[in-house]
Amino acid sequence: MLGPNRYGKAETRLVRVSRDGDTHGLVDFNVSVALAGDLTATHLTGDNSGVLPTDTMKNTVYAFAKKHGPVEPEAFALLLGRHFVGTQSQVRSATVSIESFAWERLGPHSFQKRGDFTRTALVTVTEDAAQVVSGVTGLVLLNSTDSEFHGFVRDEYTTLPETTDRILATAVDARWRHLNIEKDWLKSYDKSLEALKSAFIGTYSFSLQQTLYAMGQNVLADQPDIVEIRLALPNKHHYLVDLSSFGETNDNEVFIAGDRPYGLIEGTVTRDDAPAAIAEWWL
Amino acid sequence: MLGPNRYGKAETRLVRVSRDGDTHGLVDFNVSVALAGDLTATHLTGDNSGVLPTDTMKNTVYAFAKKHGPVEPEAFALLLGRHFVGTQSQVRSATVSIESFAWERLGPHSFQKRGDFTRTALVTVTEDAAQVVSGVTGLVLLNSTDSEFHGFVRDEYTTLPETTDRILATAVDARWRHLNIEKDWLKSYDKSLEALKSAFIGTYSFSLQQTLYAMGQNVLADQPDIVEIRLALPNKHHYLVDLSSFGETNDNEVFIAGDRPYGLIEGTVTRDDAPAAIAEWWL
Amino acid sequence: MLGPNRYGKAETRLVRVSRDGDTHGLVDFNVSVALAGDLTATHLTGDNSGVLPTDTMKNTVYAFAKKHGPVEPEAFALLLGRHFVGTQSQVRSATVSIESFAWERLGPHSFQKRGDFTRTALVTVTEDAAQVVSGVTGLVLLNSTDSEFHGFVRDEYTTLPETTDRILATAVDARWRHLNIEKDWLKSYDKSLEALKSAFIGTYSFSLQQTLYAMGQNVLADQPDIVEIRLALPNKHHYLVDLSSFGETNDNEVFIAGDRPYGLIEGTVTRDDAPAAIAEWWL
Amino acid sequence: MLGPNRYGKAETRLVRVSRDGDTHGLVDFNVSVALAGDLTATHLTGDNSGVLPTDTMKNTVYAFAKKHGPVEPEAFALLLGRHFVGTQSQVRSATVSIESFAWERLGPHSFQKRGDFTRTALVTVTEDAAQVVSGVTGLVLLNSTDSEFHGFVRDEYTTLPETTDRILATAVDARWRHLNIEKDWLKSYDKSLEALKSAFIGTYSFSLQQTLYAMGQNVLADQPDIVEIRLALPNKHHYLVDLSSFGETNDNEVFIAGDRPYGLIEGTVTRDDAPAAIAEWWL
Repeated sequence: MLGPNRYGKAETRLVRVSRDGDTHGLVDFNVSVALAGDLTATHLTGDNSGVLPTDTMKNTVYAFAKKHGPVEPEAFALLLGRHFVGTQSQVRSATVSIESFAWERLGPHSFQKRGDFTRTALVTVTEDAAQVVSGVTGLVLLNSTDSEFHGFVRDEYTTLPETTDRILATAVDARWRHLNIEKDWLKSYDKSLEALKSAFIGTYSFSLQQTLYAMGQNVLADQPDIVEIRLALPNKHHYLVDLSSFGETNDNEVFIAGDRPYGLIEGTVTRDDAPAAIAEWWL
Repeated sequence: MLGPNRYGKAETRLVRVSRDGDTHGLVDFNVSVALAGDLTATHLTGDNSGVLPTDTMKNTVYAFAKKHGPVEPEAFALLLGRHFVGTQSQVRSATVSIESFAWERLGPHSFQKRGDFTRTALVTVTEDAAQVVSGVTGLVLLNSTDSEFHGFVRDEYTTLPETTDRILATAVDARWRHLNIEKDWLKSYDKSLEALKSAFIGTYSFSLQQTLYAMGQNVLADQPDIVEIRLALPNKHHYLVDLSSFGETNDNEVFIAGDRPYGLIEGTVTRDDAPAAIAEWWL
Repeated sequence: MLGPNRYGKAETRLVRVSRDGDTHGLVDFNVSVALAGDLTATHLTGDNSGVLPTDTMKNTVYAFAKKHGPVEPEAFALLLGRHFVGTQSQVRSATVSIESFAWERLGPHSFQKRGDFTRTALVTVTEDAAQVVSGVTGLVLLNSTDSEFHGFVRDEYTTLPETTDRILATAVDARWRHLNIEKDWLKSYDKSLEALKSAFIGTYSFSLQQTLYAMGQNVLADQPDIVEIRLALPNKHHYLVDLSSFGETNDNEVFIAGDRPYGLIEGTVTRDDAPAAIAEWWL
Repeated sequence: MLGPNRYGKAETRLVRVSRDGDTHGLVDFNVSVALAGDLTATHLTGDNSGVLPTDTMKNTVYAFAKKHGPVEPEAFALLLGRHFVGTQSQVRSATVSIESFAWERLGPHSFQKRGDFTRTALVTVTEDAAQVVSGVTGLVLLNSTDSEFHGFVRDEYTTLPETTDRILATAVDARWRHLNIEKDWLKSYDKSLEALKSAFIGTYSFSLQQTLYAMGQNVLADQPDIVEIRLALPNKHHYLVDLSSFGETNDNEVFIAGDRPYGLIEGTVTRDDAPAAIAEWWL
């Protein structure tokens, strides 16, 4: 029996230049589209009469970029999602996921790529609803003090010493769900980013979980129509080097930046009255 | 309000050598553990009295590797999951995910790494149940013919020509859920792998969806206690090069192997009577 | 016969916090050390009496980070290189390569990682000389106009149309060799970076080679004691999308950002009177 | 002043199917071309009259794949290099570098990709000579015993204990230079691979340098016209886990597979009478 399924075109790379006189704008997206609906025939017999080619999805991304001009990723994803559900009756649901890469302006038509972190948008459109999730990934933050970790459970396999001063560092991967889906997306994104950063900086932390919760809360506090936020925070461990063999002390000055393994803290902060999501948005 | 959350240690790299006389064995795992349960205090106030450190999870992986010897990844994940749920009352659920890297024997204590693809195990243990999902990722297969694609929907953005002979290539990412959780895991894995490959090879394909369904069906057909399988198949496009400008024809001989974008076909094949999963297993 | 050889410890990850009162500093390095000298015995018979363990090199990196405090990567590499050549008589030459990752200050002890590009230092120390090469890698720059490409050779395999307006984008990988090896390294680095960027922006370009040469020249023009610069510039192609099938024109507005293949332009700009390098520095 | 320079097209991905009746063959290459010669004009003034477009190099790769059929990577690189130097008088030297990916046959037209390691060819053609270097990269080998490390230098920063039994593991990156450039390349490659592996397995090792030398020697011993071989062997450290806190001993059974840092041993084995290389081949 055929269970849940979908198909689409992943990672269509779009660069959209806007040319208003001499000063150009630049939008740089990685767009993935997935459609679900009545797709049984192609699975069971290879009958493609209900299959819009993934190549067409790619073409649509480029054609819409021209037609609608440079828009925020959430708005572009909504345009695409509504198009596919609205024009293909066999399509019941469209998921459009966009990575948006930032560029810094260096001149009227010159730009430098910011590789720091990536803005994301994940939009689901069905026949009667739409859901918008914004996010950020790869935002690396570090506090060199104001972080402790102690009072934890000790079992027979526990060797970790307690600490009252450690580096706390993470690569923020966060996504937040909006109730209102027509808004100033850039302004909302900037506020969320600022809220995440200020909570990370401002929290005197006894666990990364506590910092995670503070970050989530801060985003919700600021923007009433964001009803839910999910964070996945790897604990980017910095190990204190033992320098005693070399006649040196190490008062939290010299660290090994570890690769693997790493702690991974995942959590959601949600409003009491958040309406249910219309589609999974954690993947 | 704190919503769903969990925490753990990701990517603990374990190599376990077994030394039975002169002939050694080698097991190479990447183990990730995530625990969920009563973790509100650490999120809200930084009270860690219910937090088993992720460092302890890492230690447990190594200690269990010694204690239990080399075992199949599914069995090792069950041992770990049961340990955490069984010994920490505040832990309600443990998810253990293992990547298992294959090595080919070259001599009594010499090995060559196979980088072809990775075997995976994803085990969830709760207070009263356990779920085992096996899988494979990165298995790249290609048919140089016996693949057609036509009869699809054409809209105003469709430019793709129909074809009756194309390369079909994919990197198989598959996961399958077992009902019986005590079994010969290696034998089952080998049978699943064989079933996936033989269905890919044996299917004269009119769409990658059709091939996906045939592959899923073949795994279920073989092993009655596998109740559900999910496949994510990127369509690794091979574009026919237009050689006409150079006075050459190209009868499906010379192709560009494309990077991005790529089609992505995702589907599940499930038994009518499959009992519900106790935990999400698609991530 | 044993030919050229060396050995060392690669990718020692060092984070050095400086704690002057409440305001902390942060240095984030990836350090690789390679030593050459009289190493025949270990190759031929496994006699390690001339081999300083690579583990010791790692320890030395951490001990020096404590002892010498946070210093610029070029200075740190010189300290390490001189130590190894100066204390181990069998070592004739030490090469120290450092990647330096930038962090932006967010607060007195809070930082955000810049992932844009990486500063590099490559230092070679021999018994009687030292050579310092500074560099940058991964600096992605784009001009959305003021770039043409025409007048090139056409042979029987040439199909590329000429263009008088294209996107020019590259990921700058540059290295420059200093004559004077005691200087304000940060100031010099900042000037070089600025010179590279301003030449990229300011050059109306007829080929990426022309832009490369202008960039190199600009660095040398600014700083008399930089005697040579080498640049490797991938041409990050942006392909104009043909929208004519969809009834749209495309006046350099909608582009595909290509992955592979890419042009790769490599060149050196050097002073007439540049003294010879004491060691290869292009790798 | 313009110093050494070259330009080309990197990473042209070519898949070549041969269709002799029902049984197909498959060749999978990643081809990079770089040309050097009289390129001053384009650097200084943007005059492209001597510049064959990199797009043309890509076209030539595909056209030659059709014209010459599936051939070994060394032979294909020679064909391309000779073409560019032979047809473009301003080109003095062509470097063609090929990665060749292996596929295992599963059926008459079905294949499974081997991701274990990559075969390489690096060919330089000048107006009067040609040089062929074959190689392999990413071949991961491990001996679980028969490796010791002791008797090394101890300085004030040395803490490493001596060991008489450790895991020795590496990812072989090797290149060897041929004198004779018309030969059965596949046969030669297979013999080299076998020689590398058998020397790794067969050497009771007191240092990775010793193993490196034995591997190089074994390749030269076998094939008189290979005059030089270079190996870069990362020491993939496996750290013994201290299980004593958990009441367990660890007799070389449980290891951490480390990521960074790693030792890196680089060396060359060369014949006394090896003629000089016509071009650098170590990059």
